[in-house]
Amino acid sequence: MTSSDQAVGGHDVTREITAALARFVASVRAPDIPAAVRREAKRSFVNFFAAALGGCRDQAIEAAVDVLTPFAGTGTASVIGRTERVDPLTAAFVNAAIGNVLYFDDTHIPTVIHPTAPVLPALLALASGRRVGGADLLDAFVLGVEIECRLGNAVSPGHYRRGWHITATCGVFGAAAAAGRVIGLDPRGLVWALGSASAQSSGLVETLGTMAKSVGVGNAARNGLFAALLAARGITGPDRPLEGPRGFMAVTGGDCDPSLLTRGLGDSFELLRNTYKPYPCGVVLNPVIDAVLELRARHRLQARDVAGVTVTGHPLLGERTDRPAPASGREAQVSAQHSVAVVLLHGAAGIPEFADAAVTDPATLDLRGKVTVKADQAMPQGAARVVIRGHDGQAFETTVNRARGSLERPPTDDELEAKLVTLAAHGCPALDPAPLVSALWTLEDLDDVRDLMRLAVPHS
Amino acid sequence: MTSSDQAVGGHDVTREITAALARFVASVRAPDIPAAVRREAKRSFVNFFAAALGGCRDQAIEAAVDVLTPFAGTGTASVIGRTERVDPLTAAFVNAAIGNVLYFDDTHIPTVIHPTAPVLPALLALASGRRVGGADLLDAFVLGVEIECRLGNAVSPGHYRRGWHITATCGVFGAAAAAGRVIGLDPRGLVWALGSASAQSSGLVETLGTMAKSVGVGNAARNGLFAALLAARGITGPDRPLEGPRGFMAVTGGDCDPSLLTRGLGDSFELLRNTYKPYPCGVVLNPVIDAVLELRARHRLQARDVAGVTVTGHPLLGERTDRPAPASGREAQVSAQHSVAVVLLHGAAGIPEFADAAVTDPATLDLRGKVTVKADQAMPQGAARVVIRGHDGQAFETTVNRARGSLERPPTDDELEAKLVTLAAHGCPALDPAPLVSALWTLEDLDDVRDLMRLAVPHS
Repeated sequence: MTSSDQAVGGHDVTREITAALARFVASVRAPDIPAAVRREAKRSFVNFFAAALGGCRDQAIEAAVDVLTPFAGTGTASVIGRTERVDPLTAAFVNAAIGNVLYFDDTHIPTVIHPTAPVLPALLALASGRRVGGADLLDAFVLGVEIECRLGNAVSPGHYRRGWHITATCGVFGAAAAAGRVIGLDPRGLVWALGSASAQSSGLVETLGTMAKSVGVGNAARNGLFAALLAARGITGPDRPLEGPRGFMAVTGGDCDPSLLTRGLGDSFELLRNTYKPYPCGVVLNPVIDAVLELRARHRLQARDVAGVTVTGHPLLGERTDRPAPASGREAQVSAQHSVAVVLLHGAAGIPEFADAAVTDPATLDLRGKVTVKADQAMPQGAARVVIRGHDGQAFETTVNRARGSLERPPTDDELEAKLVTLAAHGCPALDPAPLVSALWTLEDLDDVRDLMRLAVPHS
Repeated sequence: MTSSDQAVGGHDVTREITAALARFVASVRAPDIPAAVRREAKRSFVNFFAAALGGCRDQAIEAAVDVLTPFAGTGTASVIGRTERVDPLTAAFVNAAIGNVLYFDDTHIPTVIHPTAPVLPALLALASGRRVGGADLLDAFVLGVEIECRLGNAVSPGHYRRGWHITATCGVFGAAAAAGRVIGLDPRGLVWALGSASAQSSGLVETLGTMAKSVGVGNAARNGLFAALLAARGITGPDRPLEGPRGFMAVTGGDCDPSLLTRGLGDSFELLRNTYKPYPCGVVLNPVIDAVLELRARHRLQARDVAGVTVTGHPLLGERTDRPAPASGREAQVSAQHSVAVVLLHGAAGIPEFADAAVTDPATLDLRGKVTVKADQAMPQGAARVVIRGHDGQAFETTVNRARGSLERPPTDDELEAKLVTLAAHGCPALDPAPLVSALWTLEDLDDVRDLMRLAVPHS
């Protein structure tokens, strides 16, 4: 027995976890899903399409599309914001990568999973080849996110801390469950789908800040869909892919709490702990940016007056964002130094401030060298204290405990819509976003999800 | 710092491991590869095509082909033993699964990696779309296996023991390196390819004995090729995907010895530690089967005379094969109880003895219930002691230290050829194996690997 066995074994409840989840996914009926959860699903969709339309021409996406399209089969599936038609597996990969590439997608607070990017693209791809109604899409999405995030809860915080990119590693299970639900797999088939998902779960934190991150996230959607299709065709898997002695939790999880997978299943919904970013960067930087924006405005600070900046937060903040010299816009999205510098310079933290050009701007380089990140065990995650010292010896300080985009300060529906419109104008100016937004808010009424996707590509 | 950081950090040598491997793969010239290594590569190929032709109609393969072909793009790539033409990424997946599905492929002794299944199919798929000569294919294969198995050495034995299916998890790196070599990636590109491989490394021991195993192995080839193609198109990755603090070794490895990745690089070749199975089952069962065959022949034992059988070996033997009631032929391939029973009954351990029908045979069920597996820490891995007790009170015992198919008892070239002919007759009777065998033994002389693949499919 390894220590992992001990972490997972020992409770009888863990013996049948995958089977219990499979029965749940197969048996939930639409009335079992509260209206508030379905509403949050639609907010997640609006946010996802916003991020995707903003990211659809990112250079990582251009490269991935170039590599995949020569191999992609007969195209039934759309790529968001683009005119290519590809096979569903390829579409699932590309749309997940597109939705996540800008770091502008949603965040499930307890796990830092970006829940929508793996799950929704798998469903949209599946729906490209068959008629799926908007209401069924919403239900399947809610259930897929439930599996994905409960699994994340069970393995957190050890899993991410060890170095697993949890969006990818747990996302593949959510995509498999959601796609299996739409296909109509029975509980045995869903266990098999989760088994083939377990054979494909991957993604390393080491890749964050590089384009390879998108490979992990893209595969989560693609391989989750693949797992469900394989199960439908009879590809068997282990009985306990999540809780078995050599299953996902034991092998990747470190200290796990398997009971979090099934406790209160159907009574609470993880989607209600989903949040939406105001800035295109790592979510832990939100309070830092808020704080700098606040100090800059309140004290009318000019970048040239700044002698030094100290950012203090929970140790996780430094672990993830203490990057004094990011080499690309992508890496800048997880750099506290860069974020502080551009916000001081421009009073904004949008797409342009995290573009490659911003990273080589001499003013940014000068300013980021003045930023220090400190850890304070006593500070809660999600908070940040910023002290800005001037050349004149003055110091200004503020602490942000509830950042914009946190669970306590969610965006309004109008703000989410505005995010979509802004990002569409950036990444896909040929698209009129209004019909898409409208279709998303009324998704339950849509007979065929393919009609939605027609609104998410230009000139069609 | 987690314990994983400490395991990998601390040596300066670990700072530049991926870069050193990339320089090696990019710079090796044909004369740097000893003739004995190239010869072993060809033996590995003969064994791989044997296993693949035997497995090409397995039900897991039929299912995977059914799922993938509707999505597969314009077909330039062959599927071994079959008539479908598919895109290269799909071909890499299917051919790797085909080669590994029967548990009849090769085994790298120090790691229990099956080295050829992830690497060769990636190369064959890549070569379907461009002219690649046989000599270049051999060189790239040797280098890919070198990366794959050295990585396995570095993370063994903790990695597999934790529950990682090492063929899949390390195979994706070997496939990426080999494909990158053929594409002509420079060292930076090879580091990126290994980075995108790291984002896709997956595969759990929990899936062994189920069809989902093939999903992990298929993806290793497919995703390794994908990683190399992405790198060629500029998809960046981390500088240290293997040795970084959140890289492959720290995250998946437990106690690692990173120095094994680079020590003696170019002086020794891991392919010389490759072995070929005489029986279609888990390699740790080889000495068990040898022992039962020996006792059965020497003492003219009949199954009905047997009261009980005790199999004793290193604890690893029991961990992997103490499966008293396998439910399928696939699971029977890793069951000591089943193996002992069928060998006692039939005096053979071939494809029919590990088919689903053999698992439900009442005589097998009766006999396997009489088999006990015991652990003895003092016994070396690769050895087994078998005691057979008769109803008459007599007991017969033998210990096998060097099993058939071990490094010390390799098959001759003729035996490998015979294995290919036998398995082709089983899985692909429409194929004349003679031209394929001949082309494999003279692979250096082949101008275009596509000519090889034409000999590996029926009616063409």
